[in-house]
Amino acid sequence: MLPKPVVTRLCTLYRLLIELGGQGAATVSSTELGGMLGVSAHSIRKDIAHLGEIGNVGAGYAVETLRDAICARLNLSRHRNCCIVGLGRLGSAVLDSDRFASSGFEIVAGFDSSINRLETIRTDISVYPAYQIARIASEKKIELGIIAVPAAAAQQTAERLIEGGVRGILNFSSAIIRQIPPDVFVTNMDFVRECTILAAHMEL
Amino acid sequence: MLPKPVVTRLCTLYRLLIELGGQGAATVSSTELGGMLGVSAHSIRKDIAHLGEIGNVGAGYAVETLRDAICARLNLSRHRNCCIVGLGRLGSAVLDSDRFASSGFEIVAGFDSSINRLETIRTDISVYPAYQIARIASEKKIELGIIAVPAAAAQQTAERLIEGGVRGILNFSSAIIRQIPPDVFVTNMDFVRECTILAAHMEL
Repeated sequence: MLPKPVVTRLCTLYRLLIELGGQGAATVSSTELGGMLGVSAHSIRKDIAHLGEIGNVGAGYAVETLRDAICARLNLSRHRNCCIVGLGRLGSAVLDSDRFASSGFEIVAGFDSSINRLETIRTDISVYPAYQIARIASEKKIELGIIAVPAAAAQQTAERLIEGGVRGILNFSSAIIRQIPPDVFVTNMDFVRECTILAAHMEL
Repeated sequence: MLPKPVVTRLCTLYRLLIELGGQGAATVSSTELGGMLGVSAHSIRKDIAHLGEIGNVGAGYAVETLRDAICARLNLSRHRNCCIVGLGRLGSAVLDSDRFASSGFEIVAGFDSSINRLETIRTDISVYPAYQIARIASEKKIELGIIAVPAAAAQQTAERLIEGGVRGILNFSSAIIRQIPPDVFVTNMDFVRECTILAAHMEL
């Protein structure tokens, strides 16, 4: 089993390789990859070594080969259903984002506690009241949930998602989700906290 | 000087203490804090020890005292001007977010390359064409920039921000910003990449 930090770095590398492939790059060296990710070439090679034998073509790796090797090793090609809870401005911006296109993630449901908002929102994606999260998540086999509700509603939202079988949560709220079962993963993406961290590093 | 990972964890603790204070909590123990942040009580106490003598009131810390000690040590109370580049749905959701209120961060400018978008956007915040980023950032003493432009425009946006004196960048795009001067800090918050990382951890 791969160590968690290696998995995280390989995912970042995977998204970078998709980007590079889209720009038409055929090969890339560990030095170039390290430069783009702000780490050493040595650390890139060490992470890639976890994938087994990856042909090194002269000056570097074949972008597609490396991308596909990470994809296969981490099982990233599988289609995954996702949902968004909280259809305010941030949530609905994510809901209708074209960024998920061809990413393997598909937003199959949106939820909000405001019936008025559900009735007026314009989107092609099915929307439901928040109290139905667990049932719909279970029925639609939703694996990933994105939380874009106010902080006060985040914990209950997470609990409903987990009750519906969701095992991955991206939390945009400022709340810290508590009492997470060991097989559920939560990533916190509160932008005010990230600004605070940046500011503190700038002060050093 | 505090190690970078300690600074990051203290910032997370700081935002959590603000949240707890808002909920009316007067004291909190290292065990409770550890439980909320998914780390051990020991690791919480070790981070707090970097702040010097913090009175331990019986069963825990006084929430306000601890919050203020972190704030003072990391100089977080200083007001900081911020800007957002890219006023699509995501960028304008962040622009008008009430989350920055009383956070110490103030959005003082928005930028977009589309003149049409600048003319039609409804916001109380001053907006400018993207080619003016460096000049306006310098004039308004902007310290933090939030990038919400398409990936293809992210690198040039970062360079303009840095040229204008910005030293902290929150990057919502999928692009990895390259050639960053050593005194500039970049945090990547691409939600598709974060979903990929969650999915990979769920597969383990």
